[in-house]
Amino acid sequence: LEQGTLGDVSRMLRKMEPADAAHLLESSPPRSRQVLWQLIDDDLQGEVLNELGDELQLEFLSALEPAQVAQLTEGLDDDDVADILQQLPDEVTFEVLEAMDHQDRARLEQVIFYADDTAGGLMNTDAITIRADLTLDVVLRYLRRHESIPEATDNLIVVTRKDRYIGLLPLRTLLVSDPSHSVRELMLTSQQALPVDMPDDEVARLFERNDWVSAPVVDEDGRLLGRITIDDVVDVIREDADHSLMALAGLDEDEDTFAPVLRTARRRTVWLGVNLVTAFLAAAVISQFQDTIERVVALAVLMPIVASMGGIAGTQSVTVLVRAMALGQINSGNRSWLILREAYVGIINGLLWAVVVATAAALWFDSPAIGAIIAAAMVINLITAGLSGAVLPLLLQRLRIDPALAGGVVLTTVTDVVGFVAFLGLAAAFYG
Amino acid sequence: LEQGTLGDVSRMLRKMEPADAAHLLESSPPRSRQVLWQLIDDDLQGEVLNELGDELQLEFLSALEPAQVAQLTEGLDDDDVADILQQLPDEVTFEVLEAMDHQDRARLEQVIFYADDTAGGLMNTDAITIRADLTLDVVLRYLRRHESIPEATDNLIVVTRKDRYIGLLPLRTLLVSDPSHSVRELMLTSQQALPVDMPDDEVARLFERNDWVSAPVVDEDGRLLGRITIDDVVDVIREDADHSLMALAGLDEDEDTFAPVLRTARRRTVWLGVNLVTAFLAAAVISQFQDTIERVVALAVLMPIVASMGGIAGTQSVTVLVRAMALGQINSGNRSWLILREAYVGIINGLLWAVVVATAAALWFDSPAIGAIIAAAMVINLITAGLSGAVLPLLLQRLRIDPALAGGVVLTTVTDVVGFVAFLGLAAAFYG
Repeated sequence: LEQGTLGDVSRMLRKMEPADAAHLLESSPPRSRQVLWQLIDDDLQGEVLNELGDELQLEFLSALEPAQVAQLTEGLDDDDVADILQQLPDEVTFEVLEAMDHQDRARLEQVIFYADDTAGGLMNTDAITIRADLTLDVVLRYLRRHESIPEATDNLIVVTRKDRYIGLLPLRTLLVSDPSHSVRELMLTSQQALPVDMPDDEVARLFERNDWVSAPVVDEDGRLLGRITIDDVVDVIREDADHSLMALAGLDEDEDTFAPVLRTARRRTVWLGVNLVTAFLAAAVISQFQDTIERVVALAVLMPIVASMGGIAGTQSVTVLVRAMALGQINSGNRSWLILREAYVGIINGLLWAVVVATAAALWFDSPAIGAIIAAAMVINLITAGLSGAVLPLLLQRLRIDPALAGGVVLTTVTDVVGFVAFLGLAAAFYG
Repeated sequence: LEQGTLGDVSRMLRKMEPADAAHLLESSPPRSRQVLWQLIDDDLQGEVLNELGDELQLEFLSALEPAQVAQLTEGLDDDDVADILQQLPDEVTFEVLEAMDHQDRARLEQVIFYADDTAGGLMNTDAITIRADLTLDVVLRYLRRHESIPEATDNLIVVTRKDRYIGLLPLRTLLVSDPSHSVRELMLTSQQALPVDMPDDEVARLFERNDWVSAPVVDEDGRLLGRITIDDVVDVIREDADHSLMALAGLDEDEDTFAPVLRTARRRTVWLGVNLVTAFLAAAVISQFQDTIERVVALAVLMPIVASMGGIAGTQSVTVLVRAMALGQINSGNRSWLILREAYVGIINGLLWAVVVATAAALWFDSPAIGAIIAAAMVINLITAGLSGAVLPLLLQRLRIDPALAGGVVLTTVTDVVGFVAFLGLAAAFYG
């Protein structure tokens, strides 16, 4: 980028698919981004904008007038325009809608009020619907009157006269069946339509399990509102999986990799602040044992080992639990089995590594007593790590707090505090 | 499950989709699994097996005779059978192939030799191919002679007489176009076919960016070998995203959530062992400063704060970098910008929290000197955390080691060691 002239870059951008141009923008530091964005053809900016992450979208959008946004988003799918508009403050959204032509606005107003993490927010209004009493021959002629069929259309949606969803006619069936049959004879009624308020992760799970390419969406009376296509579901799957990863480090899955220094620092500082409070808690615990440490300074040398092993074991438990929750594997029937399993794993690995640590510590400081103390502390802390690594995310979920937030800061506080108390407490008892 | 009779459960299982039954198995502790598996109808076991994770598949497979495996996998897609067989030892795979009927075996032998993390491993051989010189009318009649069209077929694949890929004819186009046109006039030639050895994460990225439902796969001479469908790509996306999450905790993304105690303990113990070595390294650093700690025991109280803040800041950097790498956002042009950004973020957050910690420490121990020392150590450690959090994953990637392994153990070693050296070293210099 730095070597080519602007003309070269602009020619290159013109040849790119919108998704590739978006990827280039996402992979560029802030200053190059502004330059690149200006070089993208006006009539491609909408498509590119649509492929960008939330944070970057907002950045470019906030520099535009409502009328420009309206122009930019022309030709995009309704659900995508709705996603983009939902980034903007309500009053700006209103102005953008005002600036659109009447038909676009009417269609958008149907989808924009659904939260973007529900089936309604993922939905498009471009479904082709047919009646059950038609013959395939009529359907084929009806289709031929269309100029085009929307992308990712694998089924025609069969509805009643009152627009109630009754089934699907796969194009695959339409193409191999005798044209004199009726839609009713050949349609599939086994695939239930999705309620408009279904959470998006549940929608994603259904798509994954049933290998759907598209699915109809209905209101509470069973009336067809639109359809969801796999390309939007793939984005949900990607974001949900990213969410666990990022949340365990106290980060947001929308975080822009190349956000500028100040914005990045501000984002991360909160989590550091929370950690500082809990770190002082651990320090307060240690300070209770200052006398003992003063006499046996080896304790200060060894105490981070106990805490660190607990932190690692706990992180493993939390990670397994958080992933299992994201995959919807946890229920009331297996919860206690899992907690118990984590405790047993803590006992086994605690005992195993306690022997190693005890031997090493006893030899190092030439004191069997220190070996015995650190061994006991290790076992206690690894059992605690397993238990709290399993219980904390379950507890947070019950409190309707994101379970992934149990990782990192909260968990290591538990393993630090328990580790220090166990190790220094036993030492204090022994050395009097 | 525990309350119902076996008859109830078996009736419930019969009504379930294979994917739902598989999900039930995955969400069950080991003992219930064996019972549930026995209750699944023989002719459904293949479908259910196909939906299970690698680890569970192997568990059930290893209890079966080769002939049973051959029978079980009848009717599954080729790529799915290949995935299942690749779990088994080579000789067993050979026996299973022997036990299959001739046609199945011939088809499978086409796909089984491709690694399962390449386009070849994701590919199916069920594509419908047509020639470019046909009219749509002929194509429509040709399709009608089929009993069915494979699922997720959105395009017919246009090939030459020598089976070379030349383009795609979307069913959507076929249905709306004048039947007297030729395939050549209407086919799309913009979508390149995927080379059979393309890595699966690259395949997934192309599907995501281009919103494909299926894509053709060719050998190095451009001859069509098969096609990849979105349902298999969704699994790749899910697994890749899971990989970063699990690897940061030293775990495998195939790990079975409900693995029994001993297997789980064995899996996790290695990572704990690695951590123990590095924890002793940190302890060795501290032991160099025993004299100073003996005189100023407040140092032992405060030193975990410096290490812990560094650990959190570093984890944040590593997580952002690992995700960016998984998304393919990192290249030679933006690498140094990112490293620098992380360093600046470290300086800013280091300075900010140093002031807070210094004030608190100075008041607590009534010593401005301790406040100044911990402040300096904090700034040093947070800059180190940012730098190493960015550099370590990049370095590992260059060494062709999984960058996610930089998280957890390796990174916290750096932040622990640097934290202790900075804090205790400055203290030793000051207190002499």
